[in-house]
Amino acid sequence: MPVGGAALDLTGVPLPEETLSVAKQSDAILLGAIGGYTWDANEKHLKPETGLLQLREGLGVFANLRPATVLPQLIDSSTLKREVAQGVDLMVVRELTGGIYFGKQRGFAKNENGDEIGFNTEVYATYEIDRIARVAFETARKRRGKLCSVDKANVLEASMLWRKRVTMMASEYPDVELTHMYVDNAAMQLIRDPKQFDTIVTNNIFGDILSDEASMLTGSIGMLPSASIGDSGPGLYEPIHGSAPDIAGQDKGNPLATVLSVAMLLKYGLQEEAAAKRIENAVLETLDKGFRTGDLFSMGMRLVGCKEMGEEVLKSI
Amino acid sequence: MPVGGAALDLTGVPLPEETLSVAKQSDAILLGAIGGYTWDANEKHLKPETGLLQLREGLGVFANLRPATVLPQLIDSSTLKREVAQGVDLMVVRELTGGIYFGKQRGFAKNENGDEIGFNTEVYATYEIDRIARVAFETARKRRGKLCSVDKANVLEASMLWRKRVTMMASEYPDVELTHMYVDNAAMQLIRDPKQFDTIVTNNIFGDILSDEASMLTGSIGMLPSASIGDSGPGLYEPIHGSAPDIAGQDKGNPLATVLSVAMLLKYGLQEEAAAKRIENAVLETLDKGFRTGDLFSMGMRLVGCKEMGEEVLKSI
Ligand SMILES: CC(C)[C@H](C(=O)O)[C@@H](O)C(=O)O
Ligand SMILES: CC(C)[C@H](C(=O)O)[C@@H](O)C(=O)O
Repeated sequence: MPVGGAALDLTGVPLPEETLSVAKQSDAILLGAIGGYTWDANEKHLKPETGLLQLREGLGVFANLRPATVLPQLIDSSTLKREVAQGVDLMVVRELTGGIYFGKQRGFAKNENGDEIGFNTEVYATYEIDRIARVAFETARKRRGKLCSVDKANVLEASMLWRKRVTMMASEYPDVELTHMYVDNAAMQLIRDPKQFDTIVTNNIFGDILSDEASMLTGSIGMLPSASIGDSGPGLYEPIHGSAPDIAGQDKGNPLATVLSVAMLLKYGLQEEAAAKRIENAVLETLDKGFRTGDLFSMGMRLVGCKEMGEEVLKSI
Repeated sequence: MPVGGAALDLTGVPLPEETLSVAKQSDAILLGAIGGYTWDANEKHLKPETGLLQLREGLGVFANLRPATVLPQLIDSSTLKREVAQGVDLMVVRELTGGIYFGKQRGFAKNENGDEIGFNTEVYATYEIDRIARVAFETARKRRGKLCSVDKANVLEASMLWRKRVTMMASEYPDVELTHMYVDNAAMQLIRDPKQFDTIVTNNIFGDILSDEASMLTGSIGMLPSASIGDSGPGLYEPIHGSAPDIAGQDKGNPLATVLSVAMLLKYGLQEEAAAKRIENAVLETLDKGFRTGDLFSMGMRLVGCKEMGEEVLKSI
């Protein structure tokens, strides 16, 4: 079903009703990246990004799980020193359907002096914080039992409420060690010592920034999948990277983040763990054989295009 | 004059009126870091941070200049690979008295369903964008002539206005090359290839996050000064780092960010370029001699405390 730029070209809107209704009836949704130069100057309601945000909201997928793992095969792609990058294995749990992305008080206006203003509202209700905190505690429990909640509670009221509710929930998870960190410090600590993190939970906008930062630590953003899930209904699975309009149509893209998103879809969306594992192993095997797309290429490896990379993965499944 | 935690202990408020009025009458202000465990649980109006924000607002210092430079002497302190860190020399121009930090619509309330909410408003008026953009263009012009404006204009109205006004001003600066970048991408690019940046201009909250991230790239946040300036009146000079309550009183802190803030104060606040240069050179000389506080210590160097580091710098002036 079309969404984003493709939908704009076909139907004039970034999320056609039919796309949302078919998506809602599905067991799980695999999403391609949605932007591009053609639509960059569009007004807000006609931006590809708006279609993605409407889809997330329409499906109620409030929890975005973004793993950032340094694969031994790709450690040299990281710009971090080997000893810093080695063993990084963290998960960002980003709130996805609230906060400043969706606050209803937004737009353009004039202030007292007749100056034009642009404004948005960061807003969180307790139920929104509680449900994302629960996903985060459950995620941490299945991982290494460490949860770091990131906020700006020394300045923002929305963050103060966030910290209060996350702290309250901790008593239900005595096996999970909860810490709090300010977002500016988190942006530093991710570079200073990323191994200190297991699971990170944070709001929509901080999660947007920190998960991209975390993924780049691995040196392989073209490798990283994500899952967006709600309380019920289908989840949305998509690569973390964008649509890379600069190389579109040149057979240069790295398909592995999408392939690994399918693995996440199988695991979280369809409870097909074995099938997910097969795909993950096929990707690792393909890397072990030395195949690399341009984003990950280094001396001694074999440079392949998007299509050939896909075929190599298929051979290994 | 007391501010932050010290002021709370002495006077019960984080920014006493007298502190602000003496500051306003000064030629320039050197600020120490302001937080600490003692006051962490205080209500918002009694937090040390609130005193700092009131001081910035009261002085009208809307432009925060945060350089991040990798010194050859300290390149091994960076967690980035040598070839990535080498030569990094960028300046973040952060808007400091607007945006979500100061938006008046803020606080706690109940929503339609009786749920508690916490909310804040990100808001920018054209005059606020224009004046910070002008500082940024002027800064870029005196540096390598490249300005990257960072926003989230694909989602936020406040960012759309930001991008529009910054773009409009570009015609007055034909010698400066202006580019735009989304904040999530900027958080990645700072790690992928920090040398691509010369001057970055961004809003208050994104600047808080990105400048801390940028400073950590240098591996030496204990080294980095900052200047906050307005249209007229005294500027505020302070280290980028916080108060490090975990090592307070142990003679372990690195004093060099404060020392270098004095250099910035001399240069930007008092137009005493020669005196500023002497201080900067004394710091470099002290590093060349091998003196290092704990945060920067590595094999073969001479570990010193805060006090001794200060004395060594004095010897070199
Ligand atoms: C395309 C954009 C609206 C989106 C976001 O900000 O959420 C993207 O950056 C992401 O992280 O999925
Ligand atoms: C202490 C805090 C209020 C402050 C800020 O967020 O501006 C600090 O992080 C800074 O960057 O100077």
